[in-house]
Amino acid sequence: MTISAEIICIGTELLLGEILNSNAQYLAQQLASLGIPHFYQTVVGDNPERIQKSLAIAANRSNLIITTGGLGPTPDDLTTESIADFFATPLVEHPQIWENIQQKYAGRTITANNRKQAFLPQGAEILTNPVGTAPGMIWQPRQGLMILTFPGVPTELYPMWEQFAVPVLRSQGWVKETFYSKVLLYWGIAESALAEQVNSFFDLTNPTVAPYANYGQARLRITARAETLAAAQALIAPVEAEIRQITGKYCYGVDDDTLAGVVGNHLKSQGQTLAVAESCTGGWLGETITSVAGSSAYFLGGVISYSNEVKAQVLKVSQADLQEHGAVSSEVAMQMALGVKNLLQSDWAISITGIAGPDGGSSVKPIGLVYIGLADPDGNVEAIAYKFNPHRDRHWIRMVSVYSALDQLRQRFVMI
Amino acid sequence: MTISAEIICIGTELLLGEILNSNAQYLAQQLASLGIPHFYQTVVGDNPERIQKSLAIAANRSNLIITTGGLGPTPDDLTTESIADFFATPLVEHPQIWENIQQKYAGRTITANNRKQAFLPQGAEILTNPVGTAPGMIWQPRQGLMILTFPGVPTELYPMWEQFAVPVLRSQGWVKETFYSKVLLYWGIAESALAEQVNSFFDLTNPTVAPYANYGQARLRITARAETLAAAQALIAPVEAEIRQITGKYCYGVDDDTLAGVVGNHLKSQGQTLAVAESCTGGWLGETITSVAGSSAYFLGGVISYSNEVKAQVLKVSQADLQEHGAVSSEVAMQMALGVKNLLQSDWAISITGIAGPDGGSSVKPIGLVYIGLADPDGNVEAIAYKFNPHRDRHWIRMVSVYSALDQLRQRFVMI
Repeated sequence: MTISAEIICIGTELLLGEILNSNAQYLAQQLASLGIPHFYQTVVGDNPERIQKSLAIAANRSNLIITTGGLGPTPDDLTTESIADFFATPLVEHPQIWENIQQKYAGRTITANNRKQAFLPQGAEILTNPVGTAPGMIWQPRQGLMILTFPGVPTELYPMWEQFAVPVLRSQGWVKETFYSKVLLYWGIAESALAEQVNSFFDLTNPTVAPYANYGQARLRITARAETLAAAQALIAPVEAEIRQITGKYCYGVDDDTLAGVVGNHLKSQGQTLAVAESCTGGWLGETITSVAGSSAYFLGGVISYSNEVKAQVLKVSQADLQEHGAVSSEVAMQMALGVKNLLQSDWAISITGIAGPDGGSSVKPIGLVYIGLADPDGNVEAIAYKFNPHRDRHWIRMVSVYSALDQLRQRFVMI
Repeated sequence: MTISAEIICIGTELLLGEILNSNAQYLAQQLASLGIPHFYQTVVGDNPERIQKSLAIAANRSNLIITTGGLGPTPDDLTTESIADFFATPLVEHPQIWENIQQKYAGRTITANNRKQAFLPQGAEILTNPVGTAPGMIWQPRQGLMILTFPGVPTELYPMWEQFAVPVLRSQGWVKETFYSKVLLYWGIAESALAEQVNSFFDLTNPTVAPYANYGQARLRITARAETLAAAQALIAPVEAEIRQITGKYCYGVDDDTLAGVVGNHLKSQGQTLAVAESCTGGWLGETITSVAGSSAYFLGGVISYSNEVKAQVLKVSQADLQEHGAVSSEVAMQMALGVKNLLQSDWAISITGIAGPDGGSSVKPIGLVYIGLADPDGNVEAIAYKFNPHRDRHWIRMVSVYSALDQLRQRFVMI
């Protein structure tokens, strides 16, 4: 049997956009890690007719259906009834569920509505809910089709999935292979250019290689399937090595790595310190560096020199250069970096000065023009000019400025 | 014609759980606000056959199909081709798209892959992408069926929807009733406490009033439906006035207002300037203040005094006080605020020093302990102590520190 799972999230609040469908992401991640392929997700409201239409479609193309939502005690929670009805199966009461509900309500008012949670389709088994009152079910309504239902509350879904559903799926043979993915993270190269470089890898079938972009960061995902995690990792290793060989310095890390974390590790291992001087990013570079727990080991602090007076008086940028070249210039970027290095007595210093928009651009200095200054422990300083897409908004230009600044420092360590 | 919209989100990364489907929530909210009913959402991977199967199902039950994703320049982006193929329609090149792409790539390498974004099904109109290179389309492949495609990148989807898709939907009669919502924004009061204050409003039917919380900010959404926008707004006005009367100073704004923007407006109208001194937030306060375009009118800059040396040497915090009271203390918070006010010659100064975790907490100074210093134009200074929930993570504690600091300054202006 070819396994194909499908997720149906039930809840009118999803259709109204009142909540984010984090359950779909959670279940998708869980299925991926178990190597259970799933090709479709559906969202439908608390409406029996449409729940059943979705069920008909899912049962026709998938053999493992996982639903979330609609198990509560209120009259609009209709998932269990709708499923039973679709398969023309009567509901039967499970006294132990009703007892359990009464226990959990001890001291609070229990209504007749609560009792409906004790009913499951004939033949269905209870999927215990260790947190709330609504149990789910595991049911094989017909040969070759398995249905699991979960409540929509994430804090109930997670333990039910991990403690009760996964063991059942394993014991019944739904988990055949392990899927393992590794994501290579890039900075300084566009998704399309990266894709062109590694084009030949996209035809591989195991592992597969696929590019994607996320907030200006190009990424490559390598996914392998095998009987064990170690075997999957072994399939990935040579492909990763080849890709790294081709893509070189643009790759800054894998999976949950961050530019700030990677730079921090380099600084820590060298026993060196860092300071920042920020103009258009207004503190964002410092915020990003200190988002890493333990960054006090290498980050001393910095100066947010938003006004020219602060650049001149605190960072000692030359008034003449500010006038002649303007605040957004390589001269000023270099002096900002040197200024904060001297003031804070750091080994390294990074500065950012640029035009983030929406105002302040000109034909000579358009929106998106950003200079990054970098002062090294030997006292050398340089400035790198960037011209970011001026059609991007202020937020985007500031964000890519911060990451580009971190990446400049990272590249120094890679080149050492 | 009964209107029924349907959202199809296309992207293998969604099926692998790598990203949260925030686009579905955004579109669901947008459809709800326009009064366009939608009953189903589908997620499918970048696979032509399954995209077409989903399309067949959607075209059979809905008359307005909105897709996201799969418009990129890489070979696995197949949405446009799959849709054209499903309706047996050839793709035709739009030279103006190709020109636009080349302009946006000015100075960067453009590949043959990029060119496929210039092709749309015959008869489809361009849905302009003011940000990225991938345009979407508006297409009526047959009588009674309309398809809109959008890229999967949220920062591209949002302006395309708001600037281009909504006007088309309005002009073509898809929007019959107007829903209008106004969101009141709060800081310094919990959602449950706020809900208790305005409990009696929750039974209203038009407008409706509903509380919700978002990243620690309590909010009240007032939603009215009427034939015109003006009529909906007129329904909201008296309810809003009553609620504001009850909830008082906690309400800092409406809809897209931000604490940083509100504070900025106060400073601008007073012709006063602001400086910041940040320890545990590492620049986040400055970043938030400068996220507002035009903040250079009142924001001078600041000092990120992450290390004690920077506090002492740059901000002139007393070494004795640092030793006796520690860096996280009201004494140091006050001296940081005064120090940066003196150094930058600002009217106002805010400082933040605290323990964001995960390390560094103690029984006397637990994680979540944060002092905010506030120096006013008369040279008065004070420190406010906060004990945020220590079970929250570093990100959360830093974030609520920044907003609490801004709110302290806001309250000064409200009280004036």
